[in-house]
Amino acid sequence: MIRVGVIGAGTVGRSVIEILRENGSIISARAGDEIVVKSAVVRNLEKASDLNIVLSQDPYDIINDPEIDIVVELMGGVELPFELLKAALKNGKAVVTANKALLAYHRYELQEMAGEIPFEFEASVAGGIPIISALRDGLSANHILSIMGIMNGTCNFMLTKMMNEGIAFEAVLAEAQTLGFAEADPTFDIGGFDAAHKLLILASIAYGIDAKPEEILIEGIEGITQADIAFAKEFGYTIKLLGIAKRDGDEVELRVHAALVNKEAMIAKIDGVMNGISVVGDRVGETLYYGPGAGGNATASAVVANIIDIVRSGKRSPMLGFNHPLEEGLHLKNRDDIRSKYYLRLRVSDKPGILAKITQLFADHAISIEAVIQRPSETECAHLLFATHEASEKSIQELMAQLETLDAVLESPYMIRIV
Amino acid sequence: MIRVGVIGAGTVGRSVIEILRENGSIISARAGDEIVVKSAVVRNLEKASDLNIVLSQDPYDIINDPEIDIVVELMGGVELPFELLKAALKNGKAVVTANKALLAYHRYELQEMAGEIPFEFEASVAGGIPIISALRDGLSANHILSIMGIMNGTCNFMLTKMMNEGIAFEAVLAEAQTLGFAEADPTFDIGGFDAAHKLLILASIAYGIDAKPEEILIEGIEGITQADIAFAKEFGYTIKLLGIAKRDGDEVELRVHAALVNKEAMIAKIDGVMNGISVVGDRVGETLYYGPGAGGNATASAVVANIIDIVRSGKRSPMLGFNHPLEEGLHLKNRDDIRSKYYLRLRVSDKPGILAKITQLFADHAISIEAVIQRPSETECAHLLFATHEASEKSIQELMAQLETLDAVLESPYMIRIV
Repeated sequence: MIRVGVIGAGTVGRSVIEILRENGSIISARAGDEIVVKSAVVRNLEKASDLNIVLSQDPYDIINDPEIDIVVELMGGVELPFELLKAALKNGKAVVTANKALLAYHRYELQEMAGEIPFEFEASVAGGIPIISALRDGLSANHILSIMGIMNGTCNFMLTKMMNEGIAFEAVLAEAQTLGFAEADPTFDIGGFDAAHKLLILASIAYGIDAKPEEILIEGIEGITQADIAFAKEFGYTIKLLGIAKRDGDEVELRVHAALVNKEAMIAKIDGVMNGISVVGDRVGETLYYGPGAGGNATASAVVANIIDIVRSGKRSPMLGFNHPLEEGLHLKNRDDIRSKYYLRLRVSDKPGILAKITQLFADHAISIEAVIQRPSETECAHLLFATHEASEKSIQELMAQLETLDAVLESPYMIRIV
Repeated sequence: MIRVGVIGAGTVGRSVIEILRENGSIISARAGDEIVVKSAVVRNLEKASDLNIVLSQDPYDIINDPEIDIVVELMGGVELPFELLKAALKNGKAVVTANKALLAYHRYELQEMAGEIPFEFEASVAGGIPIISALRDGLSANHILSIMGIMNGTCNFMLTKMMNEGIAFEAVLAEAQTLGFAEADPTFDIGGFDAAHKLLILASIAYGIDAKPEEILIEGIEGITQADIAFAKEFGYTIKLLGIAKRDGDEVELRVHAALVNKEAMIAKIDGVMNGISVVGDRVGETLYYGPGAGGNATASAVVANIIDIVRSGKRSPMLGFNHPLEEGLHLKNRDDIRSKYYLRLRVSDKPGILAKITQLFADHAISIEAVIQRPSETECAHLLFATHEASEKSIQELMAQLETLDAVLESPYMIRIV
């Protein structure tokens, strides 16, 4: 059994504890061992009493606990967690953190200290998207030519609203604050600093380059007005806050700023609070990773993936990634039972009563029609195009077989599922 | 030093050999060891003589070579590679394969045989996109609710053309064949079988479910006509060939078919030969992975990533993913030297000669203007909006500083970079 200690049980920490409990069966199948949270460090003991684990207000209760194998740091800040994680590593404990600010300043010192001890940080960039793993492992054969990403959901939410609804910056910021997508003091997000921390982490993995936030170009989205939005629309652009790392000979550009992006580019299509990161490798070309960049559950998904990865390391995981049956009792659904909405195309002779006859057949199979279009096709022929509400595969196949027998139906009915 | 043997040196095999040679320095930094291709098995010895490695026509020359650590299978087919890889595993050799058909039929037997021996297959699904790793490792904390993806570039190329350009199926198939995106016998792609093989592999990792291609719903795109395209457009859909795995209680639906997809969905925005796979996890929500699903280099990128992963396994990789300096001599570019296109917004008093004065300043800084719009803003005021050709950060900053000193410029110039 592997024992985890969680320092900081806010939204993400609570979610980590929940996932390890509630998804325990698949997690142990994938990790090859049982993983339990033994204890958590919280600010307010009373507020956390529902967690049903050992609680403390002193991080060293976890760091110095000989039973704890993995320390999960979710407290935030820079210097204090740095001291704590150094102490944890000194005690030989594996570390998982979601702390981008810590890594933006101290990643190389931490790598040096960690040595062979596992130190993972997937959740520090783009929340639930496994971008660290993609860059470090999935694209490891490539020289990375560029990384370009939407790494801050707050800014992307605001810019999407400004572009799509024409709402001004101040109003959309207020809305983001009301919805909990922006902090009371939003500077860290809208000034580009949050994205810059993430960019520095990615640039280290891609290029091994050391840089501090102070050394790179960081601009925010505060100055964008309706005039800019109008210009962008007129010229086929959208506006995004981007983190960009780009190799140019022996130099690497690192920059965070608002950018006009061709609206047909994949990165331009990422809207709202979602994040998306495009990576160009010299061999693979462009790959792009999209998903939720924040939120307790999404971030905790990445934290727990790191914990599983650490538990797996040292032994070899089975080829398909699980050790004992992954999901008990799962079986393949009979194709007849699959449910979908359907589009149906019929070519029929254009005679009175046909539509009534055909729609009656739909009704006989309890298939409800959502939309229908009749269009003349050739002389005395028409196309009947139907969209249905949800129905079973069996009923649609039976309907189609029956339709095919009608004299008025001139060719086999054609069906496309609607998802 | 780790020695690799490559069975099958077609487009992908050649690319694997090239990447391991040409990207050797970053690969050894990431793998922590040198990796060399010792030998290759080819059909035509003469055609492969430029590869400068030991060549043979007998796969057992690799499988039985005690010096070979990793066998890479890129020959295709089902039963012959199955026999060969069983023999390789018996000899204790790690295996990397890109062979989806083999895995669609024999993945569980291979997992059983492999046991603790590494057996990797990232390239078997969606070419260069690290989707296997995302599903097996990155999302390992999640119950997977659904997988929905564009897993066949040939079909997606054809459907994109049919949607965007109104070209009929037969004509676009001929074009795809001319461009090399479709085989002379295209059945395997356009009938949905290729996508089905990939779907089965992903479904095993997500659900541990065993199914053969014959057991699942597989339909292709052959029957789609202009009438269907017109209907799709009218109702805000696009048409995609999708592989879908969906959990519903204790049942898993597996199906491959054409589908009408809301054109605002991320998956609908994946066009041309590209692949894209959306995965919904119970904790993380939706993440999506986009990139090239085929092509020698993209597929080889995934094969080599698997090789690196195998070489790393057993020892712990450093936190940032590389052992000695990753890219020699790389340094941060001075921000003054960063080049971009720029958008500039000026609010100016609407007097004669202003535009001339301002554009002269652009010229003085050798910044070439691509587009300009003048719009009245308030009484006697105008907005001047410029898009420039590429220029250095230094020159644009100097220009902006100088513009700010002009009496006619009523507020600080505002700039957004164009990427």
